[in-house]
Amino acid sequence: MTMMRATVLRNGSFATEMRQRPQPGPGEVLVKVRSCGICGSDLHLFRHQRDTIEKARSLGADVSELERGYSQGVVLGHEFVGEIVDFGSDTQRTLKVGDRVVSMPFVVKGGAPVLIGSNPETSGAYAQYMTLTEATLLKVDPAIANEAAAFVEPLGIAVHAVNKSGITPGATAAIVGAGPIGLAIIAVLRDRGIETIVASDLSPTRRRLALTMGASEAVNGAEASAVAKAAVPGKPLFVFENTGAPGMLHRLVLEAPQNAKLVVTGIAPGEESFLPMVAIMKELSMTFVIYYTQEEFAHALDLIGSGKFDWRAMHTGTVGLSGIPGAFADLRDPEQHAKILIDPWLEAEAG
Amino acid sequence: MTMMRATVLRNGSFATEMRQRPQPGPGEVLVKVRSCGICGSDLHLFRHQRDTIEKARSLGADVSELERGYSQGVVLGHEFVGEIVDFGSDTQRTLKVGDRVVSMPFVVKGGAPVLIGSNPETSGAYAQYMTLTEATLLKVDPAIANEAAAFVEPLGIAVHAVNKSGITPGATAAIVGAGPIGLAIIAVLRDRGIETIVASDLSPTRRRLALTMGASEAVNGAEASAVAKAAVPGKPLFVFENTGAPGMLHRLVLEAPQNAKLVVTGIAPGEESFLPMVAIMKELSMTFVIYYTQEEFAHALDLIGSGKFDWRAMHTGTVGLSGIPGAFADLRDPEQHAKILIDPWLEAEAG
Repeated sequence: MTMMRATVLRNGSFATEMRQRPQPGPGEVLVKVRSCGICGSDLHLFRHQRDTIEKARSLGADVSELERGYSQGVVLGHEFVGEIVDFGSDTQRTLKVGDRVVSMPFVVKGGAPVLIGSNPETSGAYAQYMTLTEATLLKVDPAIANEAAAFVEPLGIAVHAVNKSGITPGATAAIVGAGPIGLAIIAVLRDRGIETIVASDLSPTRRRLALTMGASEAVNGAEASAVAKAAVPGKPLFVFENTGAPGMLHRLVLEAPQNAKLVVTGIAPGEESFLPMVAIMKELSMTFVIYYTQEEFAHALDLIGSGKFDWRAMHTGTVGLSGIPGAFADLRDPEQHAKILIDPWLEAEAG
Repeated sequence: MTMMRATVLRNGSFATEMRQRPQPGPGEVLVKVRSCGICGSDLHLFRHQRDTIEKARSLGADVSELERGYSQGVVLGHEFVGEIVDFGSDTQRTLKVGDRVVSMPFVVKGGAPVLIGSNPETSGAYAQYMTLTEATLLKVDPAIANEAAAFVEPLGIAVHAVNKSGITPGATAAIVGAGPIGLAIIAVLRDRGIETIVASDLSPTRRRLALTMGASEAVNGAEASAVAKAAVPGKPLFVFENTGAPGMLHRLVLEAPQNAKLVVTGIAPGEESFLPMVAIMKELSMTFVIYYTQEEFAHALDLIGSGKFDWRAMHTGTVGLSGIPGAFADLRDPEQHAKILIDPWLEAEAG
């Protein structure tokens, strides 16, 4: 029995432990994880897992699955690139052992997609190995670094957010929150020919990054409004809310000009209130986004391959599995970090 | 000096009084008001005017104009049909004295549109006469009754709400709240070829009206969910929220299936809270609507002319000017009334 190292989030804290290396089932491949990004949603889960369960319980939801994940533990990690090591039965084997692949963070079980890193049985990439569904794999060109490929997933969200917004050249954009998703949205908007892109963030480092990624202006959200700065009479305005900060939706509804379109990627932890009367008088719209399509995911891989997306500016650190708790703590400080990647082989070439 | 009767909302209550008949200015016409609907937004203003001013003040807004309207008084009424009586200077006079007209509830002052019935100087149609901007007038065909023409404005909102939703045949619709706007939306959806239209309302009378207007099913919102009934796997679902009831947005976010589109016409009086996390996980959108374009307003007039819109089913009463306070009270009871029209000439053929 071959063992591997994996980091489990259990009862609210991380533990790196030895586990059995998974076996690829029918239609599956086994990959060696080469790199995995720490996602904002992982941070959110880590910080709010207990609150979320209690909130869901108070709303009358069945929380037994959430409780099971909490106590049995889940291996997170859905922004990954892996190297094919082995094939299960019923596989096409169009790709070869040694090829590097990315995929949307789903495996197909019983014909249905199951989110990777969402339950004790469907482990993510905070581990040395993982299994993936062969049919969903996209081959990563050898010219693309492992670190670059780990950005495909968050860039896919940005591609999706921009597509769902319906923005076209001539419009202007406000980017509220220049974390990894906000920064990726800036890059995608720039690639789509949007010229006026005003970002706001409380962190000077993030504001500098926003300019690097293609923002035309970056302001301190505590002192100025990206919405006010980006609003140009006669041009459609799109506001991308990526902070999830309590009170931000309320503020944006008040700040937004007539007909503005809000696209929300930031996950507020609890209830948010706003004034519908104001939203109605201004005929605002709010579109909430989190996923992407297979086409959008593939487009993100193409963007990475084209060199148009400056992932190096966003990549601020790499840790091994035992560095995950420290990385989660470090990511609270936007002055120090944007995206930390995990290399599960950094500490020991075991397995 | 020719006098007329007009009903003024001043310091929170209605008074019918004698006023000077207005003079049409440059580019304006004087019309005799033939019929005017009582709009939900009029009811909303009447009930929440004081609260709204205090709310706006607490948000730091300049409320001096609102206070002026409150104390000096405003003549409401924006769902009107009038008969041309006189022309001001600089008018084209393509239409003739005696022609009946409708228009969007704006007059052009100094080149800018000013909402009719919004301030003490820009009086609405709760009066025997009013002035309108000639350039915005649409002629009403003689075959269309005054009562029918008074429905053009609310039907225009429904046309706009349906257009903004982007709904196409094959989708399904839930209509939450079957007041005049909800009922008009049902009629427009039916005209667009939408087959599954599930309405909910607490009132049995309104549910019967919903079926009359073309709903495929009508449920008691306290016992069943129109959203759940209208949701068909694989078909896009559009939810039209027309109640403005506190808590309704929160409920709809919880009830809505993946990718549902919410279109909000109901004006909630204060802050509303919801769970953005749920909206994000489901990738919902919310579009807030209140206005229409000139084309949509004209389309509503065409729909009325075509006979496709059963305004008679919705028309539940007519009052004179002095009946307005009673009508506002009666409209609290959806068992008795849907749309009450005002005929400012009902009580006295003065002027």
